[in-house]
Amino acid sequence: MAETYKLTYFNLRALAEPIRLIFAYAGVEYEDVRIEREQWPEQKENYPWGQLPVLQVGDKTLCQSNTIGRFLARKFNLAGEDEWESAKIDELVDALTDLRSEWRKFFMEQDETKKAELKKAFVETAVPKYFGKFEAQIASNNGGPYLVGKNLTWVDIQTAHFLEFFEVSKPGLLDSYTALKKLRETVFENDKIKAWLEKRPVTQF
Amino acid sequence: MAETYKLTYFNLRALAEPIRLIFAYAGVEYEDVRIEREQWPEQKENYPWGQLPVLQVGDKTLCQSNTIGRFLARKFNLAGEDEWESAKIDELVDALTDLRSEWRKFFMEQDETKKAELKKAFVETAVPKYFGKFEAQIASNNGGPYLVGKNLTWVDIQTAHFLEFFEVSKPGLLDSYTALKKLRETVFENDKIKAWLEKRPVTQF
Repeated sequence: MAETYKLTYFNLRALAEPIRLIFAYAGVEYEDVRIEREQWPEQKENYPWGQLPVLQVGDKTLCQSNTIGRFLARKFNLAGEDEWESAKIDELVDALTDLRSEWRKFFMEQDETKKAELKKAFVETAVPKYFGKFEAQIASNNGGPYLVGKNLTWVDIQTAHFLEFFEVSKPGLLDSYTALKKLRETVFENDKIKAWLEKRPVTQF
Repeated sequence: MAETYKLTYFNLRALAEPIRLIFAYAGVEYEDVRIEREQWPEQKENYPWGQLPVLQVGDKTLCQSNTIGRFLARKFNLAGEDEWESAKIDELVDALTDLRSEWRKFFMEQDETKKAELKKAFVETAVPKYFGKFEAQIASNNGGPYLVGKNLTWVDIQTAHFLEFFEVSKPGLLDSYTALKKLRETVFENDKIKAWLEKRPVTQF
C-alpha cells in the first residue's frame, strides 16, 4: 500500500516549499495543509516542537524541514548515488541553512538602522562567500548543471528555491552568478516542477 | 583497504567532540588535528568554507559537523535500523542544533546586561522546552535509555556531549531531568567512550 503524506505549514513558501517541490518532482501525492497565522497560537501545542513544517507519514510524524527533505529525498531517489554523494549533499544543505540564518538576522531585526546594516552584511559579505562556493562546487561537478553527481538531487531543489527566496530581498542578487542561474533554470524548467509553480498558491514569501 | 580519516578542529571539544566520540565508540582510528586559535587566521583560507570541523576521508573532504557525524554514523552502523529511525535521529539532531543556537546567542553576546537576559532565556525557557521534549522522546522509546530504537545511535552521543557542554554554563542544569541524566551516564559509561574521556586533552569547552 502506498504511504499517505500530509504536510502542514503556514500559507507561505519559505521552509516548506523545498519539500513541496520534492513531492512535485517525484510526482507523489500529498495533502498540502496551510495554517493561517491567526490560527497558529491555538494550534501550536498540537505539534511536537511547536514548530512547522511537520510531515505526517501514515500515523507517524516527522519534524524539521531539512530532516523531512532528506527523508523524502532518500525515499524518492533524490539523495545521491552513494553515501559520499549523500554526504556532500548534506554539507551543502547545511551551508544553505547557515546562509539562511544570515538572511534571517536582517529579516527579523526591528530597528531600521540595524536592519540596514545586517542586510548590507548579507548582500555584500555572506552572499558572495556562499554563492561563490556554490558556483565553484558546480564547476567542480563536471561543470554542472547540478551541484552533486550526474542527476538532479534535493540540494539542487533547495538551492533553486532559496535563490529565488533571497532574490525577493534584493532583485538582481544572482546577476553575476552564471552557474547558479543555470541551476535555478534547470530545476524550474522541469515539467513537473513547472506544473506546480503554475498552480501553487501565490504568497509573498 | 581501510579508509584513512583526519579530523581538523580547534583545540576544543565543542562541535568536534561528538565526531571524536563516534570514532571512539566505533573503535576506528583517525588523526585528531587541533589548530590553535592564533594559527587560524592564516590557515582559514585552506578550508573549503573557512570553517571547522573538517573531515578528510582519504583525499576527499567533508565539512559541517552534523553532516560529518551522520556520514560516520552511517558507516559505523550508528544511524538507526531503518530509514524511519535515521530520520527521527536527524530530527533530534536538528532540534539539538536549534537549542545550541539559543545557547550561542548568550555565549557570544558582549554586553553584560543583555548577556544575562539571554542566558536567563536559555536556562528558563529554551532548556525546559527542549529537555522536556527529549525526556518525552526517551519515555516513548520504551522508556529508554536511548532516544531512538533499541541501540545506541549518534544522536545519543551528540545529546550526551551537549548536555555536558551546556552544564558548564549552569551547573545543575540537568538535575530534574532523570532520563537525560541516565542517557548521559549510559553513553559516558561505555568502555570505549570512557577510555577516550580519560585520555582526551583537557579544554575549557
